[in-house]
Amino acid sequence: MQFQLTDELLEKVELLIETKNDKELKTLMDDFHYADIAEILDELNLEQAMYVIKLLDSETTSDILMELDEDNREKVLKNLSAKEIAEEIEELDTDDAADMIAELPEERQKAVIDQIEDEDHRAEITELLAYDEDVAGGLMAKELVKVYETWTVAGCLRRIRGQAKDVKRVHSIYVVDKQERLIGRLSLKDLITAKSEQKIADIYISSVDYVNVNEDAEEVAKIMAKYDLEAIPVVESDENKVLLGRITIDDIVDVLKEEADKDYQLAAGISKDVEADDSIWQLTRARLPWLILGLFGGLGSVFIMESYEEALNSYKELFFFTPLIAAMAGNVGVQSSAIIVQGLANDIVKGSLLSRLLKEVGLSLINGAVLGILVILFGFVMDMQFNFSMTIAISMMSVIIIAALIGTFVPIILDKRGIDPAIATGPFITTSNDIFGIFLFFYIAKLILGF
Amino acid sequence: MQFQLTDELLEKVELLIETKNDKELKTLMDDFHYADIAEILDELNLEQAMYVIKLLDSETTSDILMELDEDNREKVLKNLSAKEIAEEIEELDTDDAADMIAELPEERQKAVIDQIEDEDHRAEITELLAYDEDVAGGLMAKELVKVYETWTVAGCLRRIRGQAKDVKRVHSIYVVDKQERLIGRLSLKDLITAKSEQKIADIYISSVDYVNVNEDAEEVAKIMAKYDLEAIPVVESDENKVLLGRITIDDIVDVLKEEADKDYQLAAGISKDVEADDSIWQLTRARLPWLILGLFGGLGSVFIMESYEEALNSYKELFFFTPLIAAMAGNVGVQSSAIIVQGLANDIVKGSLLSRLLKEVGLSLINGAVLGILVILFGFVMDMQFNFSMTIAISMMSVIIIAALIGTFVPIILDKRGIDPAIATGPFITTSNDIFGIFLFFYIAKLILGF
Repeated sequence: MQFQLTDELLEKVELLIETKNDKELKTLMDDFHYADIAEILDELNLEQAMYVIKLLDSETTSDILMELDEDNREKVLKNLSAKEIAEEIEELDTDDAADMIAELPEERQKAVIDQIEDEDHRAEITELLAYDEDVAGGLMAKELVKVYETWTVAGCLRRIRGQAKDVKRVHSIYVVDKQERLIGRLSLKDLITAKSEQKIADIYISSVDYVNVNEDAEEVAKIMAKYDLEAIPVVESDENKVLLGRITIDDIVDVLKEEADKDYQLAAGISKDVEADDSIWQLTRARLPWLILGLFGGLGSVFIMESYEEALNSYKELFFFTPLIAAMAGNVGVQSSAIIVQGLANDIVKGSLLSRLLKEVGLSLINGAVLGILVILFGFVMDMQFNFSMTIAISMMSVIIIAALIGTFVPIILDKRGIDPAIATGPFITTSNDIFGIFLFFYIAKLILGF
Repeated sequence: MQFQLTDELLEKVELLIETKNDKELKTLMDDFHYADIAEILDELNLEQAMYVIKLLDSETTSDILMELDEDNREKVLKNLSAKEIAEEIEELDTDDAADMIAELPEERQKAVIDQIEDEDHRAEITELLAYDEDVAGGLMAKELVKVYETWTVAGCLRRIRGQAKDVKRVHSIYVVDKQERLIGRLSLKDLITAKSEQKIADIYISSVDYVNVNEDAEEVAKIMAKYDLEAIPVVESDENKVLLGRITIDDIVDVLKEEADKDYQLAAGISKDVEADDSIWQLTRARLPWLILGLFGGLGSVFIMESYEEALNSYKELFFFTPLIAAMAGNVGVQSSAIIVQGLANDIVKGSLLSRLLKEVGLSLINGAVLGILVILFGFVMDMQFNFSMTIAISMMSVIIIAALIGTFVPIILDKRGIDPAIATGPFITTSNDIFGIFLFFYIAKLILGF
């Protein structure tokens, strides 16, 4: 049953476009889900994609546009007039509509909004545009089903038929008082199983989860995941609970995916949101800055080694161990940071900073001891002097402990200062750990061997 | 409105347990959502947690148990008799029930199942236990609302009232034929807005997304996210579409989170699923293997450098640059792999392997050229010989190109062989790139400088 974008299908579509076989093209597209059509259009060139978009009606194309790759959507929207974009917007739910408008260059935004015919829709979208994209207000839609506590079940069902037309999926029915303040919820199921003459005030459930319109998007995702919610109402403030909109789980799935992708890219040393199919230029801009950072780090270790140059005479092997030390410092640091970053994301980093640092010291002592013994064994096999391999083992262990402490400390501090701690798993910390590790390695080696 | 687990609250709970003030403890707990109670219990010791669990009724405790940290749940279940566990199971939906039983040691599983009183529930759970946890069958629940095409709207509504009692949330109503085969769907909204004498056969929507019971869990997540589904029915096979169960979006949110966490941990060199609050021993087992791998890699570079020892006389600075080269090789490789891994996860890695490798070469040439120029400038400032800094720049560029190719190639190959490509962003590839980079660096330097 699953859609597969094959080369044959793509060739067929291209042929139908080329021969302007509108009828067959339309029939073919009608069989597909809009998300699948978007996948096809992402593979076509702009001219071909525009041809298909002009062919289909705006009810479908509005959904297709929302599913297109962001870069492609931008190109398509550039090719549409303000009037045409407004027509697409009319078909979208308010949250998607606001997102699409927000992506437009500022000078076009007003032009498009002015062309929206439905006054209510226009007012609602304008309201949503005022919110930041990473707070609850930026995720919510105005479409929801709302009933007043004074209504009866029968009256409710009648009116819901009207409201529900605009709402794709009815998750919960929100109950408000005369001042439009959220006081509870009901499910369609509750409504169907209630007697028709009952008052809403008598059957609604007063315990209702909600979020403040300025709540952070990631926090909303956490709440919805924790309480297994499929939709959550958004209110003006904790004091004044005027119902403003609702957020549905599909938007939260997107937030979670974006967040995970961003963390993963940060850890891998890729800034900006890039994809495998982006241009070489876009990819370079995302990757080069981190490499330059790494280069400076590497040049830093050149300096350090030059300052210990005198050791070359008696202990040249020390220099052979520098990539090993750098790798250990980097790996340990990233491991420590990653665990803290995930712990912070899941709110499980509790207890004092001191106890956490002590735990890392304990862990590093175990890891360091095992690795140190392996180094001494290696030295034995390689016929190295015992005090030399011992020196390497001890300095390596110190490097491991310090790297673990830095790896633990930095994300916690970043988080406390409101900076995304995931940065700490990226090249910035790795590079610092590399340099610092090599410095420490030579410093301790000098203390022991005395060169 | 949000729950905050404060030290004061924890102390209060501990005091109430200590003084055996059951009444007040119960009143306090009744105010909290089960997910919040689980959060409290995760912070208590086992004895205290057991006290609270024995105090509350099984309707609440079953949900609390499912939300507990896995390690803590295991400990609590160990302290409950088979009969007691069976009572908790009776309160759970079939998917959660099967998950909880699957976590028990094998010898206890049968004992618990035998104690489940409700025969249907027992049969359904036994059926679910047969599926792997990472396929659709392992995610689905048996609870769903199903109607036959021959029913009328009125009859339907009447019967749904019965079925819906067992279903927490009615997403879709699934329409089946006499052979129990899925033929379509309906929403409660459709049912409410239809005339009561209409036949289901006349109003149902025949286009319905579904997945095969053996479909991979990650694939199910992808389908539900792509089509914005909140529930998806599971059928026996594409040919024989007997309706077996349904998967809801909250389970998919969990799959997505676990997947993201796993990839992130793999990239950071942490095997096994560990958390910041796990014991030192658990954390060591997850981290040490990768460090040992890194150690062997580092020892490998010691060998390589020893074999180029003669260069120490005339070009000792070459050895100062090895950490830089290793870092570059590692960083570039991880960047390339991460982009491919994400592309594979989102199905956007298209086109031939060759064209992708060529793109990476292009990218590496740009990055390498910029970094090479910086190295030459550095050499100029540091008063290094021009042919020496040129040598470093050229070898570094070659290392960057090769590392990018390996980083691109490996995840694609792993994916083709059915191995999780995320492994490629972890220490395994980084370590290989380190050694290979250092080898290549010396090899090319020797070619140019001729030592």
